[in-house]
Amino acid sequence: MENEYISTAQIEKLIDEKKVKDIRQLFEVVPTIDIAEALSDIEDTKKIIFVFKTVKSEYTADLFTELKPEIKEDIINLLSNDELADILEQQFTDDLVDDLEELPANIVTRVLRNVPKERRATINKLLNYKEDSAGSIMTTEFGVLLSNLTADEAIAEIRKTGKNKETIYTLFVMDNKRNLVGTLDLDDLIFAKGDQKITEIMNRDFVTVNVNDDQEEVANVVKRYDLNAVAVLNNDGRLIGLVTVDDVMDIIEEETTEDISKMQMVSPLEDSYLETSPLKMAKKCVPWIVVLLILGTFSSMVLSIFEDRIASIAILAAFIPVLMDTGGNAGGQTIALMIRGISLQEFGPKDFWKIMRKESVSAAIIAVCVGIFAFVWFSVEQYFGIVTNSNLGYDASIWIGNCWSQEFLLEVIKVSGLVAGTLTIGMFLSKMIAVLLPMGAAAIKKDPAIVSQPLLTTIVDVTSLLVYFGMASLIFIF
Amino acid sequence: MENEYISTAQIEKLIDEKKVKDIRQLFEVVPTIDIAEALSDIEDTKKIIFVFKTVKSEYTADLFTELKPEIKEDIINLLSNDELADILEQQFTDDLVDDLEELPANIVTRVLRNVPKERRATINKLLNYKEDSAGSIMTTEFGVLLSNLTADEAIAEIRKTGKNKETIYTLFVMDNKRNLVGTLDLDDLIFAKGDQKITEIMNRDFVTVNVNDDQEEVANVVKRYDLNAVAVLNNDGRLIGLVTVDDVMDIIEEETTEDISKMQMVSPLEDSYLETSPLKMAKKCVPWIVVLLILGTFSSMVLSIFEDRIASIAILAAFIPVLMDTGGNAGGQTIALMIRGISLQEFGPKDFWKIMRKESVSAAIIAVCVGIFAFVWFSVEQYFGIVTNSNLGYDASIWIGNCWSQEFLLEVIKVSGLVAGTLTIGMFLSKMIAVLLPMGAAAIKKDPAIVSQPLLTTIVDVTSLLVYFGMASLIFIF
Repeated sequence: MENEYISTAQIEKLIDEKKVKDIRQLFEVVPTIDIAEALSDIEDTKKIIFVFKTVKSEYTADLFTELKPEIKEDIINLLSNDELADILEQQFTDDLVDDLEELPANIVTRVLRNVPKERRATINKLLNYKEDSAGSIMTTEFGVLLSNLTADEAIAEIRKTGKNKETIYTLFVMDNKRNLVGTLDLDDLIFAKGDQKITEIMNRDFVTVNVNDDQEEVANVVKRYDLNAVAVLNNDGRLIGLVTVDDVMDIIEEETTEDISKMQMVSPLEDSYLETSPLKMAKKCVPWIVVLLILGTFSSMVLSIFEDRIASIAILAAFIPVLMDTGGNAGGQTIALMIRGISLQEFGPKDFWKIMRKESVSAAIIAVCVGIFAFVWFSVEQYFGIVTNSNLGYDASIWIGNCWSQEFLLEVIKVSGLVAGTLTIGMFLSKMIAVLLPMGAAAIKKDPAIVSQPLLTTIVDVTSLLVYFGMASLIFIF
Repeated sequence: MENEYISTAQIEKLIDEKKVKDIRQLFEVVPTIDIAEALSDIEDTKKIIFVFKTVKSEYTADLFTELKPEIKEDIINLLSNDELADILEQQFTDDLVDDLEELPANIVTRVLRNVPKERRATINKLLNYKEDSAGSIMTTEFGVLLSNLTADEAIAEIRKTGKNKETIYTLFVMDNKRNLVGTLDLDDLIFAKGDQKITEIMNRDFVTVNVNDDQEEVANVVKRYDLNAVAVLNNDGRLIGLVTVDDVMDIIEEETTEDISKMQMVSPLEDSYLETSPLKMAKKCVPWIVVLLILGTFSSMVLSIFEDRIASIAILAAFIPVLMDTGGNAGGQTIALMIRGISLQEFGPKDFWKIMRKESVSAAIIAVCVGIFAFVWFSVEQYFGIVTNSNLGYDASIWIGNCWSQEFLLEVIKVSGLVAGTLTIGMFLSKMIAVLLPMGAAAIKKDPAIVSQPLLTTIVDVTSLLVYFGMASLIFIF
């Protein structure tokens, strides 16, 4: 079966020709988000307004939620107060709050003026919760059942009051003191006998989150326990909201994008990539590059100290990039595993020693294996003159392999040994530091993704260079 | 409200003291996954078996699903055929198939011998779908309703047949030719009038996936349309399975971890970090380091060509690490944004020119801003002798600033200009290549995450070095 699809041109044509019936029909067969996307590319907002005035009110709130902020703004400006109030009434409070956070102040005022007083109070409260807290993402439209109901009574109650709830698949059961005593899955209710008490079928092993918990924590709870929705409690343990699984998926996406951005040293974008202007993009990228540039001073300092030695054995400089890249790369691998593990709560600072033991063994294996390979490889590079060492007398005879002067071999072995040795130490150190930095950050409750990469690069660069020239001094006796 | 918690020691004590009632009670108040985690650390599997024999069968399948593969294996070995069949009967087919993919062959044989014949056929079919396809992750326990039913009849049908379905929140409506004609949300059914036809309340704008679609595609569909479950169709358009949102969350987690690993050049781990042995870890890390090492030959080659110049102006070597790091970092930022955008289907190869235009503007802004800053910074470094240039006559008088020889200033400006200029060109190029590589990979249907980083590093290193020494030749006239 082919999924239905609608293009901007198609829907614009329907609007221009005022084909009211076809537009209404469209909403029956095409998902609203796809229609919203097609509408988003229409230049003239009046045409979009026409759609809003044409289709059933059950679709308009959804359609409104899926549009881009700029278009929402235009639409609010063009709608009458009554029309606006209609859409707002249908919107879930959490979606409405998300919109308000993105719209300019004058629009927000107009929106708030067009919702009933009690709802305005709720909205204002949600707007005041800390960004990315459970409170800021929850919705207040949850379904509550009293614990003395039977299954049949509960279903009747849901039919009466459940229609404007965000979900009825997870219901919250309260005793007569309004304490949350259980959660009830709609499917259990459906399968129950009509006269069965809901306290017999509800889950007593439910988990909850606190209103001040970070959204990442909320996402982890929903994911771990395969929940359809999780209850949000205030500090007094009272039920004040719920977060549903579809919101959690958006949170996971947002948090992961943030992690990846920080790991590669871009400040997270507020909008999608395509909607971010080049200037804004530059602002997100420049600070990190500058930090790395300033930290790079340390490696320049080390190298300038050894300037004389570089001048006398210039071949040493030829291997600096490979030392830097390999060291940074080895640590980067470990940092990726650490940050992902910490963010998925697979492990944390409490497992530090366990991970250090594990990582030191694997780092040692990796460093020694790559070190041996590197020694052979660097020797081959020099022997065949791929990388020319001007201290060696290269001539055509080497290429056919009949010039094995002891001096030549010794020089090759010295250089390869030096580079491979530094590489081995650098990789091992890099991987150890790559455990230490994110773990340390997590231990002091800082974001492990943000501190790790620039510090790792700097520490590894400087240490590798010190080891490199330190060992060179011993081997070549300057 | 405090969430209940159980430690390994607590549950082991209950088992040792054979507190059957307490153990049963535990399952009522603590989520099964938490109990499974506590049980996993008990050495003696016989104790875990005791729990299986103690608690209600409604919990054992869940408990079994949440245990680690090694423990599952032990448990299967210790259970009688009847006991095993009991657990298997309760398990959903998709969970069972996941287990079978992880267990050794002799265990798989024993499991398959203990499920009824028809189910064995289904399992074998699921086991044969391509890894990570919709078929390999779907379950076959979906709820079907015939399109001629009324709401009341549908609810009665669900009560009768729905109990062993993976979900009843999304039901599939078929016409009498067994074509899928709509999906029905349970909440709409609950709110419908009893005699209403389900064809009036079902969704006709449903989306489906094909059995051969990649699991990432399935996840994107469920996320985009906020679905509770999506129908899986075979090539003839027949409904053969469904994938639920909780499975999708696991897929998203898995796919993201893979992306992050590849981006940082680790081959994705099959198990969690803590369960991967150091040797296995080394195998995942070494290949990439070796690739980078071999590719590093190019930068060594370039540098060895310029050996004479380095020997004569050794200060040039001091800035090599900062050139490599900054160039790689600038490109890494863009790569992160590209890979994330492609994987979230925000954009793709078709948007190549749009993105190139955008990215070239922001790359130019970034390169010029950082370039100007770098020029000033490198001048300061040299002027104050933080990075000493042996061509300059540093003495105490510089430090108090009364030695401004023209020669000294010209030398500082030449070096800073050279390094900052190379940096500017390097950053711009790096960001352009960082669009090109993942987009190119996506266009030829290769994984953008895997090819990009090592190639980027190599190309940027080599180009930067060529520009650096090329410009140095012009400025210093060797």
